[in-house]
Amino acid sequence: MSAGGSAVPRFTGRIGVIGAGALGALYGARMANVGYDVHFLMRSDHDAVRRDGLRIYSAQGDFTIHPPVYRTAAEMGVCDLLIVGLKVTDNGAFPELLGPTVGPHTVVLTLQNGLGNEEAIAAVLAEHFPGEDVRRRIVGGVAFLCSNRTAPGEIRHISYGHVRLAEMSGPLQPRTHTLARLFTDAGFACEPHDSLVYIRWEKLMWNIPFNGLGVGGYHASSDICVSDPELRRVSRGLMEEVQAAARGADGVVIPDAFIDKMISYTEAMGFYRSSMQIDYENGKPLEVEAILGEPLRRARRAGIDTPRMQMLYAIVKRMDAENRKRTATA
Amino acid sequence: MSAGGSAVPRFTGRIGVIGAGALGALYGARMANVGYDVHFLMRSDHDAVRRDGLRIYSAQGDFTIHPPVYRTAAEMGVCDLLIVGLKVTDNGAFPELLGPTVGPHTVVLTLQNGLGNEEAIAAVLAEHFPGEDVRRRIVGGVAFLCSNRTAPGEIRHISYGHVRLAEMSGPLQPRTHTLARLFTDAGFACEPHDSLVYIRWEKLMWNIPFNGLGVGGYHASSDICVSDPELRRVSRGLMEEVQAAARGADGVVIPDAFIDKMISYTEAMGFYRSSMQIDYENGKPLEVEAILGEPLRRARRAGIDTPRMQMLYAIVKRMDAENRKRTATA
Repeated sequence: MSAGGSAVPRFTGRIGVIGAGALGALYGARMANVGYDVHFLMRSDHDAVRRDGLRIYSAQGDFTIHPPVYRTAAEMGVCDLLIVGLKVTDNGAFPELLGPTVGPHTVVLTLQNGLGNEEAIAAVLAEHFPGEDVRRRIVGGVAFLCSNRTAPGEIRHISYGHVRLAEMSGPLQPRTHTLARLFTDAGFACEPHDSLVYIRWEKLMWNIPFNGLGVGGYHASSDICVSDPELRRVSRGLMEEVQAAARGADGVVIPDAFIDKMISYTEAMGFYRSSMQIDYENGKPLEVEAILGEPLRRARRAGIDTPRMQMLYAIVKRMDAENRKRTATA
Repeated sequence: MSAGGSAVPRFTGRIGVIGAGALGALYGARMANVGYDVHFLMRSDHDAVRRDGLRIYSAQGDFTIHPPVYRTAAEMGVCDLLIVGLKVTDNGAFPELLGPTVGPHTVVLTLQNGLGNEEAIAAVLAEHFPGEDVRRRIVGGVAFLCSNRTAPGEIRHISYGHVRLAEMSGPLQPRTHTLARLFTDAGFACEPHDSLVYIRWEKLMWNIPFNGLGVGGYHASSDICVSDPELRRVSRGLMEEVQAAARGADGVVIPDAFIDKMISYTEAMGFYRSSMQIDYENGKPLEVEAILGEPLRRARRAGIDTPRMQMLYAIVKRMDAENRKRTATA
C-alpha cells in the first residue's frame, strides 16, 4: 500500500517550494522537519519566516523550522525538484519563477488546483529544453488537505493531507515512487496513480460544485450546499456533469458511487468554506479558469452538455471580475 | 385588430384596484382619466394620494387624478371588477382583500407575475361561492410594461404597456372583450387570447432568465445578460428550458424564433433592471416562487429536465432568504 517502503530510494536532491502558501509551506515544512533539503521562495511571508521561522500548528504536532528562504527565483537558484503550490491565478509568473530554478535534471511537481497547470509549466520548460519531451519532467499531484495560512509564516493544518501523484505523460517512472516516499516520510499518505487525468477529474468532482457554489451559490459554504434541498440537487447535478465531462473529454470513468461518497464526505466535514469562497471573501482573484473554465471548455470540445457547469462558470466569472474591480478601486 | 371597436360594450361597473403599485396604479389612473369609475385600495401611498392625488408622468402625457382611495378592503367594499396588481409575495392577504370586495357578479383580473396567482384567487373565491365554478370569474392578464413608482402616489411610465388577457377556464367570454376595451380606451394595446397558459409561459420566457439572473447572476441587469457571452448562453439555455417546460407541462408550443425575438428585444431595451432585481436591491421579498419555483415544479411534474431553472431557483431562493434575514435585523 505505502509508497514509502524500503525498496524505494530516498530523494537526495535540493527541493524548492514555489508558492509556499497553506499547501506548499505545510508540505515543505514537514519534509524539512524530517531532514530533507527544502528551500522556500516567498514574497509576502519572507521577512516573517526569516525572523521567526515557519511555524506549523497541527493535531499531528506543532513545530517551527528556520529554512533557507529567498525573495526571488534567481536567489533560490536551480533545484532538483520544484514543488509548485502557487495560486493558478499567478501562473503568468511561471517564466520568471522557473527560468532560474530549473536545471538539466529538474523535475517539477505541481499540486495546484484544476486543469491546465501541467500544460502551462510544460510551455515554459519547452523554451528551456528545446527538442525534449518536457512533459516527462512534470508530475501532477492532487492534495486532499484542509489547511490555512493564519498569519505570515504561520500555517494551521486542520485535517487530511493525503496526496496522489501521476505523470503528466508516459508510464510511471521510478522517481515518482521516490516523490511519493517524500510525502510519506513527511507523514502524509501518498500514492502514485497511473492516470493524471483520472486524479484531476476526480478532484474536480468536489472542487467544481463546492468551490463554484461557495461563490456563485451566494457564498454557500459546503455544508449549506449539501443541506439546502435545492442546492443539494444542484451539487449532485454538477457532479453528474463533471462525471460525464471526464468520460467524454478524457475517457475517465468515475463510478456513480463516488458521487454519494463525496456527498457523505462533505456532510461529515460540517461547516467548511472552500478556498475559492475564502479568496472571494478576501477580495482575491479566483481560480475560476482552472477549476470551472478549463473543465467546461474540455467538455464543450468533446460535445458534452454541461448546463450547470456553464451557468456556474458564467456567474462566478462575473463575480470575480466585479470583485477585482472593487478591490482595484478600494 | 383592436378590441376597442364599437361593437364591444363599454365597462359600466365599479372598478377596484388592489395592489396599486407601478402597474396597478398606472392602469387604474389611465382608466379613471378617461372616465371609468376606478377606486384604489392603498396602504403606504394612501395619505399621499388623498393629499396630492395620484400623479402620472409619461411620454404619453402627465396628469394627476384625485380618485377615491381606501385604506382597507372593507372601506372599499364590493366592486364589479377587481384589478389585482399585488406583489405575489402578498398573496397571503387575498382572503382579507377579496372577502369584502367580491359580490355576486364580481370578475377578478390578475395582472401579477408568474404562475399560480389565478389558482390562489380561485381558492379564496371558492369559499365565497360554494358549488360555483369560480374559475369562470377569473381573468389572467400579462402586462408588457416598464413603469416605476418613484415616490408615494407618483408613477413614472417609461415605455410599453401592452396587455394580453385570457380566461382562467373555458372559452373567451364577451366580458373579456369589454375588459380589453377598458385597456384600449385607457391608451394601451390589449388583446384577448384564447389560452391563459400560453400567455403566462410566453411571458416567463423573458421573466425567468432576466428576473432570475437579475438577482442570481450577481445582479446582472438584462443588458449584461445578453452582452456577456457566457451569460447570454445561460439566458438562451434558460429560454430553451422554459420552452420545453411549457410544452411538456401545458402543451404550449412556443416557436424557436421567439427566443431570438426576446434576445433582440432585450438588446434593444439597453440598461434595464427587472422588477426582481429592483426588489432585491431594495431589500424587498422576491417573487421567487411565482416566477421561478412554480414553473420549475410544473416542469418536474411533467418530467421535463430543467437544470438551469433548478439552479437559478436554488440560488435566488437562498439570496431571498438571506436578504430577508438582513432586512429583518437591520
